[in-house]
This record gives sequence, C-alpha cells and structure tokens, in this order.
Amino acid sequence: MPSPFNQLHDAMEQFATDRDWDQFHSPKNLAMALTVEAAELQECFQWLTEAQSTELDEKQLSAVRDEIADVQLYLIRLAGKLNVDIEAACQAKMKKNAEKYPVELAKGSAKKYTTYENDDS
Amino acid sequence: MPSPFNQLHDAMEQFATDRDWDQFHSPKNLAMALTVEAAELQECFQWLTEAQSTELDEKQLSAVRDEIADVQLYLIRLAGKLNVDIEAACQAKMKKNAEKYPVELAKGSAKKYTTYENDDS
Amino acid sequence: MPSPFNQLHDAMEQFATDRDWDQFHSPKNLAMALTVEAAELQECFQWLTEAQSTELDEKQLSAVRDEIADVQLYLIRLAGKLNVDIEAACQAKMKKNAEKYPVELAKGSAKKYTTYENDDS
Amino acid sequence: MPSPFNQLHDAMEQFATDRDWDQFHSPKNLAMALTVEAAELQECFQWLTEAQSTELDEKQLSAVRDEIADVQLYLIRLAGKLNVDIEAACQAKMKKNAEKYPVELAKGSAKKYTTYENDDS
Repeated sequence: MPSPFNQLHDAMEQFATDRDWDQFHSPKNLAMALTVEAAELQECFQWLTEAQSTELDEKQLSAVRDEIADVQLYLIRLAGKLNVDIEAACQAKMKKNAEKYPVELAKGSAKKYTTYENDDS
Repeated sequence: MPSPFNQLHDAMEQFATDRDWDQFHSPKNLAMALTVEAAELQECFQWLTEAQSTELDEKQLSAVRDEIADVQLYLIRLAGKLNVDIEAACQAKMKKNAEKYPVELAKGSAKKYTTYENDDS
Repeated sequence: MPSPFNQLHDAMEQFATDRDWDQFHSPKNLAMALTVEAAELQECFQWLTEAQSTELDEKQLSAVRDEIADVQLYLIRLAGKLNVDIEAACQAKMKKNAEKYPVELAKGSAKKYTTYENDDS
Repeated sequence: MPSPFNQLHDAMEQFATDRDWDQFHSPKNLAMALTVEAAELQECFQWLTEAQSTELDEKQLSAVRDEIADVQLYLIRLAGKLNVDIEAACQAKMKKNAEKYPVELAKGSAKKYTTYENDDS
C-alpha cells in the first residue's frame, strides 16, 4: 500500500504539471510559501487564549483544517523536490530529540523552552 | 497497516507525556512552534538563489531534513490536539484547489500568485 | 534633525556596502530575512503564558531587545530598497485602520480578530 | 521634536484604548501578530524572481507599503509594552553585528549566511 505521503506527493505533482506551475516551485519559493501558510494557520489562534484555542467552533475548525492541509501539501511538495523522505526524516529527528532531552532531565521542565540560551541571531 | 501519520502522532504523544510537556502544548502554542520551525526551514534557503536552492550539498540537506521533520512533527501534534485528520484535510483541500484554479484558466499563469487580490487559501 | 529611520537606514547601507553584501539584499531575500527574525522574536514567547510574557526577566528581555532590533533593521533595509517611506506608510495605514474599525463598532469586540472573514490588512 | 517612534507609539496606544483592544495585546499575542504581518509582506514576493522583486508596479508597491506599515506598527506596539527603546536597541545590535562580522573577514562572503552552522532546533 503506498504511503499517504507518496500519494499526496504524486497528486500535488500532477496538479502543478497540469497548470505549468513547476516553474514557480523552486525549493526556495516553496519554503517561502510553506512559512506563509504556517503563519496563516497561526493567525487562526493569535487572538485566542490558550484555553480558547482548545475549543474551536466548527467555523474556526474548518478554517484550521484548510490551513493544516496547505502546510502539509507544501511540505510534501518541498520534500519531493529535494528527494527528502519525510517519514524517515521524522524518525531520525525523533531519535535525536530523545537523546537531546532525556526523560529524567527534561521531565516537567520548560528548560528546553528557552530560546535565549542558544541565540545566535 | 497504520498510517505513518498515526504512527508519528502516537510516538510524539508518548514523547510529550514522558516529559510532562503536554502542559505547554496548547493548539495556540503548537501553532506558534510550527511557524518558528517553518521559518528555520526557510532560513536554510534565504540567501541562496533559486538555482542554488535546487542543488544543496549534503551538509545543507542534512539541516533541511531536520527542519522538514520539525515542521511535520509539530503539524501532526497540532492536528492531533484538534482531532484533525491530516490526510482527509489534504484531500478536501486539493479538491477545493482544483475548483479554484481550473487548468484551462490557470495554465502557465502566475495570476494565482498575486497576494493583493485577497488570496486566503 | 534627521529621522532615526534615515539614520539607521544609512548606517545599515554602509554596513552592507563595507561587506559587499548588497548582492544578497534583493527585496525578496530581505523579506525572507525579516520573517525569519520575526519568528525568532516570537520564539522568545512561544512557551510562555500571556501573563508570563508581560514579566520577562533581564536575560529574556535582552534576547527580545536584540530580536526587535533585527526586525527593525531588516524592515528599514527592505523599505530603503523599495523607496518606501516607513513613517508615511504608517500614517496612511493608521488612517485606513481608523476607517476600517470605527470606535463605535469595534469597541471591546474581538470581531476584528477572526481570520476566516478575509482580513487582508 | 519627538521621535517618530514615540509619535507612532502614542497614536497606536490611543487607537487600542479607544477600541478597548488592550486586553488582546499581550506581548505574546503581539509577537504572533508581528510574524503574521511579516509573512504577509513576504507573500508579496514569494512567486517573484529576485530581479522582479526590485521592479514592483504601483499596485504591488501599494500592497507592500501597507504590509511594511503593519509590521512597523506591531513592532512599535510590542516594544512599547516591554519598555524597549527600539532606536537604542538598533544601535546596540548594529555594534554587536560590526564586531561579529569584521569587514576584512566578512567581505563578499556569504559565510554568515549558513544557517546550519549553529542549528540547534
């Protein structure tokens, strides 16, 4: 059975080919589009409290579903252009994360969550 | 066979539970984290030309792989919190896109690509 | 007395010229860099509650100050490349906003804050 | 003569007070809004080539002007909430940058522009 990643990838590729949009889809441009879609997804939550963000009504949820899809579709498209296997990349990254944040050290701590400890902007 | 989305979802959930990180993972916060990871992915390309972005060396590609995984993992985590089926959302969105951009009208045109016309996809 | 926008603009331009970085500073690339810096600024807040975000300690504030500066500097650089007068643009936008959100209608309402209604400000 | 930063700050504050919007304007939320506006600005450029991004027509430029203003206004609002003096922060950051990228080392080099050298995501 083909992976859903592969199925979506092929459908996206066909969609772009049919419209001759491949010319716009450099990895650089796709990465830009991905960030824009992520920001649109974020926008759905920006004036909500954290509590409100857990209790979306159907209208909000419908918008969120579309934005989640947009992020996913551009991510698959970008990964495809770079021959990155998303699933394998996720497995590898989760392994790194497990080593970086051992349970005994990370438990209940927000220490991970300090951006300024490694800030090299 | 379980979908890779489901497998990754369950692994992420276990990871967060083990570390007692669920307290930080409101949909609002996860949407923020997702955008930050998308921006980190974009950063890999920002000073490259479009042509260069198609020819990454192994070091660049390794960084890109990690960032793609970060985006994917937060997206799965966010979707899980909201009970959104990513695959179904993608199928529905692709159908909408096909209606919004009919081949005969969209072909080879960058018309889609004007932000000021109110593209709220 | 020259505007601080102009002073910072000229200092940034000199900085880039000295390093021969102008070749990287197309409006497209500067817009990308601006978003990346905005995301880094956002990252400082992403795991904080709203209440915590109002009470940063000195270490957090120092990181935030640097990121605010990065956003400001890239914005000035981008505006300069496009001959946009930031101050005039702000005045014009505030006037538009005042018309779009009349006090009597907008007061105390989060209605503005629905992303799905097509807010393209 | 008051700084344009101060003038815009005061006008923004009055605007929010008049509409009772202060309740939404935690630093966390303002940082989110800032990123969303930066992404909207970026969206104006995402399907353009770098060369095209230097030659916007009046319609494109008008959209860009509005987005630049949105970024600037949220940045001023966020800085105001945190009592950050933007101009001083910029001066301090430019000094840091000058030390970090000495002319003789940085000249003509894109070496700064490698994200993966410090990637701690």
